[in-house]
Amino acid sequence: MTNGFTYLDPWTKLTKIQLAVTDIYESFESEFQTIDVFETRDFGTVLALGGVTNVTDRDESSYHELLAHVPLFAHPNPKRVLVIGGGDGGTLREVLRHESVEEAVLVDIDGEVIRCARQYFPELSKSFDDPRATVIVGDGLAYVKEQQEAGAAFDVILVDSTDPVDAAVELFTRDFYESCAALLGDEGILVPQSDSPTFCLDRVAAIHRTLTDVFGHARLYLGQTVLYPGGYWAFVAASRGGDIAQRELPVDRMKAMEPQLRYFSAEFATGMFALPLYVRRALDGVEGPKPTIADVP
Amino acid sequence: MTNGFTYLDPWTKLTKIQLAVTDIYESFESEFQTIDVFETRDFGTVLALGGVTNVTDRDESSYHELLAHVPLFAHPNPKRVLVIGGGDGGTLREVLRHESVEEAVLVDIDGEVIRCARQYFPELSKSFDDPRATVIVGDGLAYVKEQQEAGAAFDVILVDSTDPVDAAVELFTRDFYESCAALLGDEGILVPQSDSPTFCLDRVAAIHRTLTDVFGHARLYLGQTVLYPGGYWAFVAASRGGDIAQRELPVDRMKAMEPQLRYFSAEFATGMFALPLYVRRALDGVEGPKPTIADVP
Repeated sequence: MTNGFTYLDPWTKLTKIQLAVTDIYESFESEFQTIDVFETRDFGTVLALGGVTNVTDRDESSYHELLAHVPLFAHPNPKRVLVIGGGDGGTLREVLRHESVEEAVLVDIDGEVIRCARQYFPELSKSFDDPRATVIVGDGLAYVKEQQEAGAAFDVILVDSTDPVDAAVELFTRDFYESCAALLGDEGILVPQSDSPTFCLDRVAAIHRTLTDVFGHARLYLGQTVLYPGGYWAFVAASRGGDIAQRELPVDRMKAMEPQLRYFSAEFATGMFALPLYVRRALDGVEGPKPTIADVP
Repeated sequence: MTNGFTYLDPWTKLTKIQLAVTDIYESFESEFQTIDVFETRDFGTVLALGGVTNVTDRDESSYHELLAHVPLFAHPNPKRVLVIGGGDGGTLREVLRHESVEEAVLVDIDGEVIRCARQYFPELSKSFDDPRATVIVGDGLAYVKEQQEAGAAFDVILVDSTDPVDAAVELFTRDFYESCAALLGDEGILVPQSDSPTFCLDRVAAIHRTLTDVFGHARLYLGQTVLYPGGYWAFVAASRGGDIAQRELPVDRMKAMEPQLRYFSAEFATGMFALPLYVRRALDGVEGPKPTIADVP
């Protein structure tokens, strides 16, 4: 990594995004991944994990708001929330905007991500200092198994992981989803970040299928993530207590939070489960003109 | 332009997209713009105008379907359709899927774009040979003025132009929109491609404001355009005969066309006017956390 221009997102092998780098703060190998923190001309401070954009100052809001607020507004009264991954603090920040939340536990495997967030992303990592937050450096799957054995319960679990490579692979398994299901009450909701519908549609559909199978109900929703591959991202909300798309929206609670938000809103929520045709076809496994861009191998 | 890797979309000055070029078919200056036609490893054949991705084989469908089908399904009985620009033929192809359409006129200023489309994009340009199609090489604004003086009428006008630089600037003016309004009947609908909400939000809002003022009603909608800057694009549907978002969706007509489509569907249509918060704020001109990425100067 050098000052000048850098091309991120080699993972997709199909497109790369050019960013103008003006200053490099950190560039090193942690125990788990390559971590780069740098300043850019146009997107503010950027955290890249494994050479892939993870968070930028300027476009982090949509991803974090979508991951957190869809399940937290769908749940009637979320009190205990678990975030797996999310060491930058952004998802935790959104979770803690909900006044009903009494305790939010964040478990990230890489303490160096948490340290970099505290040092370079004060707006995101301020959530770590909320008295309702518990921040744990550890393995997400192991934590979930321990909690399952201890008989713990959560209302919402959010998986804010990197894509399924290296340490994150175990967070995309049926075994992990089943352990999450065991921690969730009857009204419980699990949402993993669910990859790129543009470049990994088969994987998106597989996550949706597995979660439908394990939980009984799963709803896919999409939103803009400018600096992730394809600029558009999928999330799957898995629920045991019925289809969340059938629930009445808590419009008053949503509108009360809107002054703090940039992307999610009561209006956005009215259309969020209406999918484009190519995505619906992939979820349904039906024939039709194929999605146009090949899956990444 | 050489084989290997090329970086397109210099226009945004913020991000570029890397494509692996495997063969170059054409690279020249027409009377109006630089035209490149080349083969890529991952997106099929690409047409770039002025160094900006215009059409690729693999991701052209969402843009063309969104531009054409939203107004053509919102109009109760579209018979005469005008396409300004769109020399690649993709928008015209979608227009002609509607059986009610008796005549579709396409006016593109650059005959070389039409020639390249015929030569390298047979799937798009087959629309030129439909007996209902009239293809004219000429200036869009001049054509609209002539038709206005001749007392002509259209049901739907689509502006499938490049972004407002060079020859396309006149297609983003109030004067042009007013001439289009004069050509449209009481039920008429105008939809210009309306730029990037990520990088040009001020321009998107200005188009929406001007069209609301000229037509009385305008609805913004958004969709994926993988190889355009930001991966997400805005369209504004301006209508004289009331707010199109209040109309009942012609679900049967939509479902009958779905086997030919990849992106637009009856399901997608149910959510298409529900905007993210940052876009709604920009249209309403209200305060709140600002959109995160600066407008391109």
